[in-house]
Amino acid sequence: MFDYQMHSRILVWMETAAEELRRSHQRDLKIEEKKNAADLVTEMDKATETFFVQKIREHYPEHQIIGEEGINDDPVTDVSGTVWVIDPIDGTLNFVKQKKNFGIMLAIFEDGLPKAGYIYDVMNHDLYYGIVGVGVFRNHQILEPFKIQAISEALIVGNIGMFATNRGNSLALLTQSLGARAYGAAALEIISVLKGEAAVYYSCGLQPWDFAAGWALCEALGFKATTPDNQTLNLLKRCPVVFGNPLVHAEALQLLKETKEIGEINENS
Amino acid sequence: MFDYQMHSRILVWMETAAEELRRSHQRDLKIEEKKNAADLVTEMDKATETFFVQKIREHYPEHQIIGEEGINDDPVTDVSGTVWVIDPIDGTLNFVKQKKNFGIMLAIFEDGLPKAGYIYDVMNHDLYYGIVGVGVFRNHQILEPFKIQAISEALIVGNIGMFATNRGNSLALLTQSLGARAYGAAALEIISVLKGEAAVYYSCGLQPWDFAAGWALCEALGFKATTPDNQTLNLLKRCPVVFGNPLVHAEALQLLKETKEIGEINENS
Repeated sequence: MFDYQMHSRILVWMETAAEELRRSHQRDLKIEEKKNAADLVTEMDKATETFFVQKIREHYPEHQIIGEEGINDDPVTDVSGTVWVIDPIDGTLNFVKQKKNFGIMLAIFEDGLPKAGYIYDVMNHDLYYGIVGVGVFRNHQILEPFKIQAISEALIVGNIGMFATNRGNSLALLTQSLGARAYGAAALEIISVLKGEAAVYYSCGLQPWDFAAGWALCEALGFKATTPDNQTLNLLKRCPVVFGNPLVHAEALQLLKETKEIGEINENS
Repeated sequence: MFDYQMHSRILVWMETAAEELRRSHQRDLKIEEKKNAADLVTEMDKATETFFVQKIREHYPEHQIIGEEGINDDPVTDVSGTVWVIDPIDGTLNFVKQKKNFGIMLAIFEDGLPKAGYIYDVMNHDLYYGIVGVGVFRNHQILEPFKIQAISEALIVGNIGMFATNRGNSLALLTQSLGARAYGAAALEIISVLKGEAAVYYSCGLQPWDFAAGWALCEALGFKATTPDNQTLNLLKRCPVVFGNPLVHAEALQLLKETKEIGEINENS
């Protein structure tokens, strides 16, 4: 039985965190580089994750927490019990350079399996959540799964660096599709798959905080979320991921397996 | 002296057309393929262009009109006098598949030179216009040009097919930047350059209706809009285009000229 009290708390925390992020655009932010100039962390990434960690510690001290910024200093080494996974700002580069096109992602797992996922498209005031066994909601309204029948009749989403180097045989997907879109935030790209704006989301390597909420939302919508080898995702490590409805997910896995000559790439791609 | 009566009329026509496009999402649309399955035209592309052509004919019968859908049956072979350039729906594939991320673009030229440009981000209710010699406005508020100093500190925008095939040496730009974003509509990508969310918009081949409004808006903002060879754009033919502020535009032209080994492509690109 899903814990609706916990769910209600999460909704309030997400709203509070989103409002703080919107307000932070009014002032100059402290920004640091992580691995390189394109991999940024701001004071708001840290403050947002700290906020969630404190709330979880207060109400659910026995739960485990995985967060992008590592605010929780109790590393998770097994996924038994309840595990929270937090990405305080997905798309930090967009947050800094565009002041839009970023998301908050949060997910709840029980013994390694997804129970609920939350993605907040902050600047559009769009909150998506999925409860496994119940459904997916956009701003509390049920989202009907839109059944795309084939990749050839649809757009796909992923990042440009991946396509530019054909990483993970990604051009096999691109050439089969009507074209790709790249928003610079997994959060927004996953939303576009849930809404049926794109058939498939593909990435060659995502951290658990990047895929956990999407995995739970896919599960709740009856979509598939696996590695390209059709393996179950693993909360404890970086994984390549394919998200989509069962039909296009199967088609994507097949396409990614085939290494053939890449066809012509449409100019509108 | 700019014709503000004409400008006011255009604002009303853009609002009317945008409202019709939003309303059209409520019903099934007739959709046809042009060159291929990714190159669509809907009844709304045609209806919107027809609407503008009729209005222009009514008020300015002596003006020339270039439109994507060729509704005006009087082909333009020289650019003397006043020429209107219309893209009734830029991003038709998004319009069909996403019901968002598309724009209306319109521009006014005098003897081949831009006088005013209009881009309507329809679903976000954001109307941008630029009057050469006056400035650029977003929903009637002046837009201050945001001076990006170098491509290395910024995002760029363009289409994924171009980067995936390194068309026009585009990877030289991508690797120098913090990453690229691709929205599937020149209209939205040009807006992101005007707003300073991205440094440079690059395309290896745009039709006049795809670049005319962006050219006029760049001119009005003090930005540069040329071919990669620094040639003036030509309303009568397909051109490769580079848009950006003078600093990053010059840097982009230099980068696109150099054919060197492509550096590492960042995973966040």
